[in-house]
Amino acid sequence: MSGNTFGTRFKITTWGESHGPAIGVVVDGCLAGLKLDISDIQKEVDRRKPAKNSKVSTTRREKDKVEILSGVFEGKTTGMPISLVVFNKDTRSKDYSKIKNLYRPGHADFTYDIKYGSEFRDYRGGGRSSGRETLARVMAGAIAKKLLKEREKTQIFGHTIQVGSIKAKTFSKSFIEKNELRCADKKAAKEMQKLIEETRFKEGDSIGCIIEIIIKNPPKGIGHPVFDKLDADLAKAMMSIGSVKGVEIGSGFEAGTKKGSENNDQMSSKNNKIEFLSNNAGGILGGISTGEDIVIRLAIKPVPSISKELKTITNKGKNTKIKTLGRHDTCLGPRIIPVAESMAAVTILDKIL
Amino acid sequence: MSGNTFGTRFKITTWGESHGPAIGVVVDGCLAGLKLDISDIQKEVDRRKPAKNSKVSTTRREKDKVEILSGVFEGKTTGMPISLVVFNKDTRSKDYSKIKNLYRPGHADFTYDIKYGSEFRDYRGGGRSSGRETLARVMAGAIAKKLLKEREKTQIFGHTIQVGSIKAKTFSKSFIEKNELRCADKKAAKEMQKLIEETRFKEGDSIGCIIEIIIKNPPKGIGHPVFDKLDADLAKAMMSIGSVKGVEIGSGFEAGTKKGSENNDQMSSKNNKIEFLSNNAGGILGGISTGEDIVIRLAIKPVPSISKELKTITNKGKNTKIKTLGRHDTCLGPRIIPVAESMAAVTILDKIL
Amino acid sequence: MSGNTFGTRFKITTWGESHGPAIGVVVDGCLAGLKLDISDIQKEVDRRKPAKNSKVSTTRREKDKVEILSGVFEGKTTGMPISLVVFNKDTRSKDYSKIKNLYRPGHADFTYDIKYGSEFRDYRGGGRSSGRETLARVMAGAIAKKLLKEREKTQIFGHTIQVGSIKAKTFSKSFIEKNELRCADKKAAKEMQKLIEETRFKEGDSIGCIIEIIIKNPPKGIGHPVFDKLDADLAKAMMSIGSVKGVEIGSGFEAGTKKGSENNDQMSSKNNKIEFLSNNAGGILGGISTGEDIVIRLAIKPVPSISKELKTITNKGKNTKIKTLGRHDTCLGPRIIPVAESMAAVTILDKIL
Amino acid sequence: MSGNTFGTRFKITTWGESHGPAIGVVVDGCLAGLKLDISDIQKEVDRRKPAKNSKVSTTRREKDKVEILSGVFEGKTTGMPISLVVFNKDTRSKDYSKIKNLYRPGHADFTYDIKYGSEFRDYRGGGRSSGRETLARVMAGAIAKKLLKEREKTQIFGHTIQVGSIKAKTFSKSFIEKNELRCADKKAAKEMQKLIEETRFKEGDSIGCIIEIIIKNPPKGIGHPVFDKLDADLAKAMMSIGSVKGVEIGSGFEAGTKKGSENNDQMSSKNNKIEFLSNNAGGILGGISTGEDIVIRLAIKPVPSISKELKTITNKGKNTKIKTLGRHDTCLGPRIIPVAESMAAVTILDKIL
Repeated sequence: MSGNTFGTRFKITTWGESHGPAIGVVVDGCLAGLKLDISDIQKEVDRRKPAKNSKVSTTRREKDKVEILSGVFEGKTTGMPISLVVFNKDTRSKDYSKIKNLYRPGHADFTYDIKYGSEFRDYRGGGRSSGRETLARVMAGAIAKKLLKEREKTQIFGHTIQVGSIKAKTFSKSFIEKNELRCADKKAAKEMQKLIEETRFKEGDSIGCIIEIIIKNPPKGIGHPVFDKLDADLAKAMMSIGSVKGVEIGSGFEAGTKKGSENNDQMSSKNNKIEFLSNNAGGILGGISTGEDIVIRLAIKPVPSISKELKTITNKGKNTKIKTLGRHDTCLGPRIIPVAESMAAVTILDKIL
Repeated sequence: MSGNTFGTRFKITTWGESHGPAIGVVVDGCLAGLKLDISDIQKEVDRRKPAKNSKVSTTRREKDKVEILSGVFEGKTTGMPISLVVFNKDTRSKDYSKIKNLYRPGHADFTYDIKYGSEFRDYRGGGRSSGRETLARVMAGAIAKKLLKEREKTQIFGHTIQVGSIKAKTFSKSFIEKNELRCADKKAAKEMQKLIEETRFKEGDSIGCIIEIIIKNPPKGIGHPVFDKLDADLAKAMMSIGSVKGVEIGSGFEAGTKKGSENNDQMSSKNNKIEFLSNNAGGILGGISTGEDIVIRLAIKPVPSISKELKTITNKGKNTKIKTLGRHDTCLGPRIIPVAESMAAVTILDKIL
Repeated sequence: MSGNTFGTRFKITTWGESHGPAIGVVVDGCLAGLKLDISDIQKEVDRRKPAKNSKVSTTRREKDKVEILSGVFEGKTTGMPISLVVFNKDTRSKDYSKIKNLYRPGHADFTYDIKYGSEFRDYRGGGRSSGRETLARVMAGAIAKKLLKEREKTQIFGHTIQVGSIKAKTFSKSFIEKNELRCADKKAAKEMQKLIEETRFKEGDSIGCIIEIIIKNPPKGIGHPVFDKLDADLAKAMMSIGSVKGVEIGSGFEAGTKKGSENNDQMSSKNNKIEFLSNNAGGILGGISTGEDIVIRLAIKPVPSISKELKTITNKGKNTKIKTLGRHDTCLGPRIIPVAESMAAVTILDKIL
Repeated sequence: MSGNTFGTRFKITTWGESHGPAIGVVVDGCLAGLKLDISDIQKEVDRRKPAKNSKVSTTRREKDKVEILSGVFEGKTTGMPISLVVFNKDTRSKDYSKIKNLYRPGHADFTYDIKYGSEFRDYRGGGRSSGRETLARVMAGAIAKKLLKEREKTQIFGHTIQVGSIKAKTFSKSFIEKNELRCADKKAAKEMQKLIEETRFKEGDSIGCIIEIIIKNPPKGIGHPVFDKLDADLAKAMMSIGSVKGVEIGSGFEAGTKKGSENNDQMSSKNNKIEFLSNNAGGILGGISTGEDIVIRLAIKPVPSISKELKTITNKGKNTKIKTLGRHDTCLGPRIIPVAESMAAVTILDKIL
């Protein structure tokens, strides 16, 4: 149980460090016969990349060119494990001596050291704890999303619903992928963008956000009654993404303030079609999907790397201070969306194969 | 993967239905040599029971007498699986004909039927989907809590921090187990009690709440980097408890509104002791425990069984209405606290054995 | 990974000690809707019991009365975990002081002590290491066999093919369950019986044997290419039964002496029906079932408890001698047959659900 | 459960096809701080390669150059997953049209087709079912062997004990790696070599063999009581290697013919050192290691690819005949030895981490 594998039937195993030779994933359990082209995967990987000239994201520039090393023959999956890899290129040989021996607040440096021993950590760019690890999840997720779409007509997408105190109020699905923030509200998107730029360039700070993932037309009847409830597995999947500090399903934390008569989703039947009159359950009852949209919201913490000076200690326990300069993101949510979609897709698929 | 087993090293497997012969759990992976008496388990099981003359909870009256069927010899665990059982007694032979063929809103009746087939469901008292299933978790959790306390000096407790819109504002740990609501704020507890009684007796309704679980002095360095992050496993553990709709760690959803400079926990060192200057991380960085308190909050939905009439359908798809009369809880949080403590204990223990 | 659970989809978890209150199993993953009566399980449990007035087996007399505590409603399985239990009765309060502190050769006393600590072992009748543990496997296996038979028309049976140097030479299936040795050769059965009686009563010794398990009409195409080959999982299942020292599939060890032209199973087709011209593969190619009979043979070591005096040591490391008197079996194979059939059934079923 | 992952703590996941771009393995769970150089892995991979100018083995000539893509930093493991890869080079663009549509006897072509669908199979060189898959096991095993040796002083080696009817009678450990057959008996080695050459060149046939794996100085007290017995897991590990048709531990099948007084390993104590007077148990009692050598023997079937004409069918069910010409091995045992050592190492290591 070393934590680099997720799922049991559609099982993904990721590997690789931020500044190591490559990042990859082995996808085990994909059905035979799925048409699979590099471009199916590349386009999802590209969605995870920072926008060109972005003022929100890192300026690290990776081509992130996907290669398929196994499991696909004559353009179709064979049922055998699919090995996907991206070789790292832009691993700028920068000087890490400043952060090598100290603990960046909000990062995993300290906990990796107490777990694995401070003399062995690959500190370059965060090593394995870098957000770059999620690239592997997106590669695997691209396959899961394609299979779900073709087999179940299930579609998964995410959008940013809050940055700082700015909330999205309107919803235009088609606008989501047209703005770097992946916000479905044009007006809010502009305000969010402004807030992020100010936070970044005026304050040298970063900012948190809330994103929402929606699984449209999910398969019915998936998930298990007790420990492996679908919402439980989705919660794990989402909370396993770095920077996620909260997960809610359907009415979520608001359910804690509501009455039963408000929160219960009533049912009715029309022309032999069963209908829920609301979706506070978020598509899951008793751990099993109802067939309604599955709605998940995630709290994303502000990026810990900022230009403000903070107190910290060295790995010898000496007090010191740190400013994390470099090519960092300011608000992670928009780039986490493809990752969260991927984890949702893998979780759902794992339950139906 | 049928979902009745949790954990890999300290592994618990539960079984039993609300109105079947018994409820039980097999605990596999407990170390040999732990002193274990029935009373260690009985006292936790008793904490889960509704208070006598409660106006908050069900009036079902079970003795819930725990029996140990294996794994303990001469008062100590042997390292072999521990089988624990409670025989059901108060399974009132009530008439279920009214709910047998229809779907109670907010309950799992509908999803169990689409998954397992409507002709096989044990509808008596909710069968396997009943909250009574959590009794088994509490039995297992009692062992986990004892082992954690003796081996690691780790202690776990929970309290109710919000019911409807009433929030706890002060914190007196010693008061928690002195009031049925398990609220640490005496004044808020009284208001919560009043709100619940009004909701129940005047409105025939139920109400949601938010609870907080605190793991004091957790072992350091547990959890894994990528998918099996400690927070991910805790999120799964918590979301697997019926009625939980949201989980957050540390600053949680608030992190989505904060700046990096506010949310980062700075560090300092005094007399060779490392100190975090805040705990927005909730005791976990990069999926691995820092040693600080682990802080988890859960949103609990209002009990779905209420006396108000709601629209629903029969299992043949006919429109109908339902009022769920009976011996139901009104606000589940306080009774979920020992369950959530148990799941936290099992999750933590599973990571260190 | 404490080893008391087998399978992932049809998952069984066993518990209980030889002289503890009870022995049981939780079966998780059985489909809903299987008709299941106590008698389905009781009849298999009875096959495992020693024959009355047996000269081959132990004289411990247990009723082994099976109880179903969950997962069955109105005579059918519900898809929820099935908890089965047998309470121990004939746990003669004999004096264990003689074996409490020493290591019986061929038994697990020594290894349990080095693993769990000598102060915690339940030494009564071997505790958890007793063959009585297999009772739980047979209860679970009864369900697996019934499900396999109804769903796949697969049948599983075993017979004794060798005791000491006496080999079965003819095969009469109907004779198997008519003799205590479960030998399909009437003449050999008589010789085996005689050999066992002589070994037991004249020599105070025990004797090994070889048994064969045959899976008729197994589902085709089950098992996985690499590590979870069907033969690999069957080998694990079989080797996990106490006293088994060898497992072979199809031509087995003889394959080590053969030529490719002899060992390859040629194929032909007649009237659109595919036919293998021999079955050296034992029904499995590349880890996946062909649909031919799956043939497994097991080497069973002689029962280690004998009346001859042997050298051993105490748990303090002092040299001593031991004669194991008591109610022991002499040749275990015939009683292991229902256990091995059960493990085969669980393994096969786990691969198809 | 798609079968390409083995182990739970020291977990290996393999991927790749015989004639695909590459073969690889992800090793998850290796401790941090192990010195690891390419040469540690390359030397084991080289042991698996056919000898130059071999008359026993295939003439396919691969460099099998190992690359490390993650998990190693400044020459030491970091605790993160180690990704190892060998790119395939000598994938001669031969004409597969002859075998593409028919089932080679003794191969997995037929079962892959019934499982995955005949239109998707990668038939080139056997695809995923090729023995080339074991290259990945050997890469992972090299790490496991190194860690076991450094941490536990455990050493693992194998030798060929029988080819056809020729048995090794003497044992010279140092001779094993000096002959292509890995036989410890110089005289027998010569006879085996002669038998193989005759079988190959005169008869166009292949031949089976028996190999023995010895784990010297294994850790004590590993393995679990019931289903996850050490011998059960070793049996699975070994039987998961293609061509293995039988596994035995210690006295193995001979135990089926012995008396208890012969087969029991007596114990004595001398100068506080515990001693077993024999090792029929093969180092395992009750599923847990005693600390004595663990002794495993494997039956290896003759290579199914031979030049003799055999009956078979096409994937349309038409009768036909086949001669498998090509670059094939004749007797696989010697090349399986490093694979079996690897699986033994991974199994043992998985139990102690």
